[in-house]
Amino acid sequence: MLTELKEAVFKANLDLAKSGLVILTFGNVSGIDRRRNIVAIKPSGVPYDSLKADDIVLVDLDGNVIEGWLSPSSDTPTHLELYKAFPQAGGVAHAHSPYATMFAQAEKEIPCFGTTHADLFHGPVPLTRLLVEGEVAGDYERNTGKVIVERFTGLEPTELPGVLVAGHGPFTWGRTPAEAVETALVLEHVAKMAFGTMFLDRGRPPLDGYILEKHFRRKHGPDAYYGQKKEKDHD
Amino acid sequence: MLTELKEAVFKANLDLAKSGLVILTFGNVSGIDRRRNIVAIKPSGVPYDSLKADDIVLVDLDGNVIEGWLSPSSDTPTHLELYKAFPQAGGVAHAHSPYATMFAQAEKEIPCFGTTHADLFHGPVPLTRLLVEGEVAGDYERNTGKVIVERFTGLEPTELPGVLVAGHGPFTWGRTPAEAVETALVLEHVAKMAFGTMFLDRGRPPLDGYILEKHFRRKHGPDAYYGQKKEKDHD
Amino acid sequence: MLTELKEAVFKANLDLAKSGLVILTFGNVSGIDRRRNIVAIKPSGVPYDSLKADDIVLVDLDGNVIEGWLSPSSDTPTHLELYKAFPQAGGVAHAHSPYATMFAQAEKEIPCFGTTHADLFHGPVPLTRLLVEGEVAGDYERNTGKVIVERFTGLEPTELPGVLVAGHGPFTWGRTPAEAVETALVLEHVAKMAFGTMFLDRGRPPLDGYILEKHFRRKHGPDAYYGQKKEKDHD
Amino acid sequence: MLTELKEAVFKANLDLAKSGLVILTFGNVSGIDRRRNIVAIKPSGVPYDSLKADDIVLVDLDGNVIEGWLSPSSDTPTHLELYKAFPQAGGVAHAHSPYATMFAQAEKEIPCFGTTHADLFHGPVPLTRLLVEGEVAGDYERNTGKVIVERFTGLEPTELPGVLVAGHGPFTWGRTPAEAVETALVLEHVAKMAFGTMFLDRGRPPLDGYILEKHFRRKHGPDAYYGQKKEKDHD
Repeated sequence: MLTELKEAVFKANLDLAKSGLVILTFGNVSGIDRRRNIVAIKPSGVPYDSLKADDIVLVDLDGNVIEGWLSPSSDTPTHLELYKAFPQAGGVAHAHSPYATMFAQAEKEIPCFGTTHADLFHGPVPLTRLLVEGEVAGDYERNTGKVIVERFTGLEPTELPGVLVAGHGPFTWGRTPAEAVETALVLEHVAKMAFGTMFLDRGRPPLDGYILEKHFRRKHGPDAYYGQKKEKDHD
Repeated sequence: MLTELKEAVFKANLDLAKSGLVILTFGNVSGIDRRRNIVAIKPSGVPYDSLKADDIVLVDLDGNVIEGWLSPSSDTPTHLELYKAFPQAGGVAHAHSPYATMFAQAEKEIPCFGTTHADLFHGPVPLTRLLVEGEVAGDYERNTGKVIVERFTGLEPTELPGVLVAGHGPFTWGRTPAEAVETALVLEHVAKMAFGTMFLDRGRPPLDGYILEKHFRRKHGPDAYYGQKKEKDHD
Repeated sequence: MLTELKEAVFKANLDLAKSGLVILTFGNVSGIDRRRNIVAIKPSGVPYDSLKADDIVLVDLDGNVIEGWLSPSSDTPTHLELYKAFPQAGGVAHAHSPYATMFAQAEKEIPCFGTTHADLFHGPVPLTRLLVEGEVAGDYERNTGKVIVERFTGLEPTELPGVLVAGHGPFTWGRTPAEAVETALVLEHVAKMAFGTMFLDRGRPPLDGYILEKHFRRKHGPDAYYGQKKEKDHD
Repeated sequence: MLTELKEAVFKANLDLAKSGLVILTFGNVSGIDRRRNIVAIKPSGVPYDSLKADDIVLVDLDGNVIEGWLSPSSDTPTHLELYKAFPQAGGVAHAHSPYATMFAQAEKEIPCFGTTHADLFHGPVPLTRLLVEGEVAGDYERNTGKVIVERFTGLEPTELPGVLVAGHGPFTWGRTPAEAVETALVLEHVAKMAFGTMFLDRGRPPLDGYILEKHFRRKHGPDAYYGQKKEKDHD
């Protein structure tokens, strides 16, 4: 069932592992079949080097396992909240990559200091609030998803395809599981460069809005002219 | 004799070398057979790429060599003190990994700033005091073990599976040699992210206790729900 | 047509990818045939691991595609401005390598703090001004080239083979596409070391002029004595 | 002639390249035959991946080429000064590794903050003065060697097997070319950790003398007990 989606999610999980963004099993990627509302996700705590495409677990949007003999990632409820609230998300990735996590731990958004950032994020990378005690005690992972969705009130998730969960780390999304992983990679790169920019100039203001706008629009939306017309890449 | 244990210790030493945590021969891993009270440990100063499973040295808890033609690691007495004081430790690892060692050299504990840390350490990573002159002059490596044990007075080593020795570097432990190495890897990752968090926010307070508690308990103890019921991993 | 040039540009693009300076497709290299005034450049948004020599696009100095079925890099107009203004440039490279980009984002030149820098750059690495709103709105990539050229008024591009575009990142050049990539690599190394030097000594003055001069001249110009008489390398 | 020495120098140069301490051709290693007073050294500006054992150049202590068809490294006169002044040096290595070079560029010695440092260096890593204008103008590379030797007045080069040349970078030495390269690797590791220690605690005092002494002596000199009796390694 849904072999192609499982294969794509499997491959995206391996790509995340190979990217250097995760150590041990500290990350997961999922993908969704929007017609059937079924999500394919990495099983919990399985090392990447023994993971097989067949181990990918299928769940419905309430978290019930539809297929698979392993428990799904403990972060599954967070992914489900994102799929429910962001209809254009086809894949979600989660990592504890070091620079993005430093900003999450310091409770700071990542300001847009340059065109690398502007190519993918139409503004600073948003930061959620910390979960309060009651939210942590009960249904913790679902509430993590809810505070992300709450943070995106008034924001457009296709223009800001990632978030920092305070005290935790980044979640990213895209049209496909592969794109969610690519965004995780760019986010880490952007976070590292923002970190260094703030070292060189502590009070650095963000990039002017007209450059941010130009760079984002040359790659996204109706007037995009980057790539080979159907790709969303960067050179 | 104890071929399986020697093989596990051999493999864990290679994994430590491959992890990037050590340069040259600056690290060692051991494991213990609790029924016979025999410890298997890397020989001193042997490069990882020429190390063989058969080179692993067996010693008793007093440090007498039981089997092996090479001298055991000069840090053996430190490992033995840990096995004697921490009955649940099945493996011990030592590295001079850069970020953990920076904290050890600066004599600072690693505060818990996020969930990556809380998943493995139930509080800040403890720091020993510096050894005094007499402790260094005589039986130095054994006294290194003793100051670690002294630091754990009132602490639970299964909930804080690692320590920073002041002016030296980290020691970690786990149920198996492999787990001790995994903890060394997580500790370095956590140290790097704490370092960056302190750059972004110098006076950063630690994570709230209720989140620390939640994250540690979802992976450890009777109510753990992470992983496939018998694994202790993370996603 | 121009098979050799296309092959050299293809290989230089792969070398840039392998160097670790770029993630995804965030970089490009071109080369020029000065007799025919034809530039060979990477196609836009094509991943490095599927790139073939035949995919390299040929354009004239006005940007018209002469050969190739893919769109050229969106940064092509920037490259063309550099070839028009710097007659000795045979290759141009662009990356978003982290440390060089940090300086570009912080709008700081890279001071010459040591001989590694002086071996390749005869002074600080120049920084352009930010483009104004009108320059971004129309013909953005060509204007990026123009502000680089403007910054080199009174400077010698063969003695300063690279630049930081404010808020964006580095461009480098050389006699060949391969040399442009090597310069990108040295620039990133130099940027990282300048970064660390400024951490250790915030107000650090640059290297004395007589050492800068000596190091640059032992590798460049009529009195160079480094290498095997026809090479421009460094040991 | 001296095939074995040339082979050892060749291999040490490749090890330096593989260590990640050098980019392009920014490094070189030499070795000496003390009976014949002949030094084997890397040729100038030859890329590591095309270097062959036969390319290694033999020179006498005055720098005259004894064998080889390539020019020796432009840094050869520096190596020769070290061999003349330090009779126990059997190999010399030079790199522009980033963290050691940061300290050289900032004109700061590397303080001994921990046992990793103390295992190899019996005190802070020394820093030379800057060369004055006349020293740079004439016989620059030989004068680089001379300021290193000048800095070691009253110091023991076997107990401090490396130096930072101000504004330039590190030179290291050992009993063999391979040992000189290992020391370069440890020096870079130690420099990185000192850098981070100074971030965590700006005014950090160095390690107490009794610990420094203990660690250095457990690996060096008549009472050393580390390793397998004839090795000088570290775990």
